[in-house]
Parts: sequence; structure tokens; C-alpha cells
Amino acid sequence: MPDQPTDHAGLETLPFEVCLRLLASVPIGRVGFCADGEVVMLPVNHAVDGQDVVFRTAGGSKLTAAQEQNLVAFEADSYDVQTRSGWSILVTGRATVVYDEAEVSALNRLNLHPWATSVEHPFWIRIRPVSVTGRRTPVPAGRG
Amino acid sequence: MPDQPTDHAGLETLPFEVCLRLLASVPIGRVGFCADGEVVMLPVNHAVDGQDVVFRTAGGSKLTAAQEQNLVAFEADSYDVQTRSGWSILVTGRATVVYDEAEVSALNRLNLHPWATSVEHPFWIRIRPVSVTGRRTPVPAGRG
Repeated sequence: MPDQPTDHAGLETLPFEVCLRLLASVPIGRVGFCADGEVVMLPVNHAVDGQDVVFRTAGGSKLTAAQEQNLVAFEADSYDVQTRSGWSILVTGRATVVYDEAEVSALNRLNLHPWATSVEHPFWIRIRPVSVTGRRTPVPAGRG
Repeated sequence: MPDQPTDHAGLETLPFEVCLRLLASVPIGRVGFCADGEVVMLPVNHAVDGQDVVFRTAGGSKLTAAQEQNLVAFEADSYDVQTRSGWSILVTGRATVVYDEAEVSALNRLNLHPWATSVEHPFWIRIRPVSVTGRRTPVPAGRG
């Protein structure tokens, strides 16, 4: 296996296409943003639409952040306790509420249904990436 | 089962003691902070020491955030794809680098070894909570 680029912590850094594929491979990620000077990180059920991360929300702080077109982060990861290995993807981008009806219809066809079902999640939020980075614990020698 | 308090998204809100227990039950959480105006969220192997979240770092942006005693967030969660259920805990607090030798020795005895092993993680970071909140998808009727 060719040497992979690594970051200062010794984690392999992942190519953009791999990041997008991994992002789409898990049902949950976390939206992070600053609200009143504090960092908030909340899990959401997401999907990947082209290069954008999209999710539904019922309102509240995630909606407010998107209405203000804030710079937000989105993180997804997966890990295996047995092998002590995993990957993580970090997206930074501008969040916007999707108001365009045709676009909402297209997103509704993604069939993304939040697990929290006791209230409606009428709003779609789109995060258009400014940067997408990913890292992974190195594959042990002989297992690549 | 008595009615649990819920948030605006219909998620049950969890008592403080439950939050601490759940935080300690998973090997990975995510540290979130603002760096140069952007939100950064990075997974770490953590432990719970009293009411504090502690983790080791090799340096870089997490160390810088702690050296500046920034307000940071720490998020941990767990979910089950089959039952479409899960919980998440969000800690907000001040991050500091642990320089006191006795305290470092005590933390070393926690036996917390980051999975990224190719470089040393010599610094301990402590997050002293200002707030700890947790939410969980409601347990379906008849399964409580």
C-alpha cells in the first residue's frame, strides 16, 4: 500500500471523494455552530445531496443558525471498538434554509425521515461545503 | 412509565446523573470549539473524571483551544439503526491543559490510550462543565 498523507496526530488524511462517500454511509452526523458565544453540537439524521449535507429540523437553534446563514460544521464518524479504529469527516460550510418549493420537493424524495418522530420536521437545511476534510486511523501493516 | 420532559424536537431530556453515566459509557466523543471563526469538531478518546471530561492530545488546535481556556463543547452519542433510536449528551465548559504533575499522574492511571498510536499524546485536557444536557429518542409505548 502506498504511504498515505497523515496529519499531526498520525491519522491518515482522506481524499475528497472518499470523504463524501463515508459521509453518506452513516445515518447520523452532528451539526456544530456557535450560538450566543457557545458551541452547540447536535446529532441529526442527514443525507448527502451532490456535495451538500442536508437534514430536516423542527425549528430551534439549528434553524436559527441556518436562517442567519451561519458558518456551521458537520461531523460524521464511525469506529470499531474491537480494532480501535475509525474515521471522521468534518465539513465546514454555510447553512441555509431551503425555501424553494421545487428544491423542497426534490429533497423530500430523498426519503430522509428523522428518528425523532413525535414532532414534525418541516424545514430542510442545506450545508454547502467550504471545506471537507477526513481522517482515519492508519490501517495496520499487512491489513491494507 | 412516568412522562419524561421533552425538548422542542420531541426528544426526552435526561437528568444530570444519567448524562454523566452515558458519557462514560462510550469510548469516543467529539470536542467542538471555534478556531479562527470556524467551528471545529474532532473525535477523541475520552474519559469522565468526576464530573469532568478528560482526553489526551498530541497538540494542534485542540491544545491551542485549551491553552486559551476557551469555552468548548463535548458531544457523545450512541444510536441503534435497527430501532432508529439513540441518545446524545452535550457538555459545555472551559477547557484547560493539565500541567500539575500529581494530577497528570492521577489521569495517567485512568488507563486512557488514544487509538491513534503513531504519535505520542502527551497533553491532558480537562473540560470542566458549565452545562451538561442530554436527550434521547422516546422509548416506544409498551417498551419502557
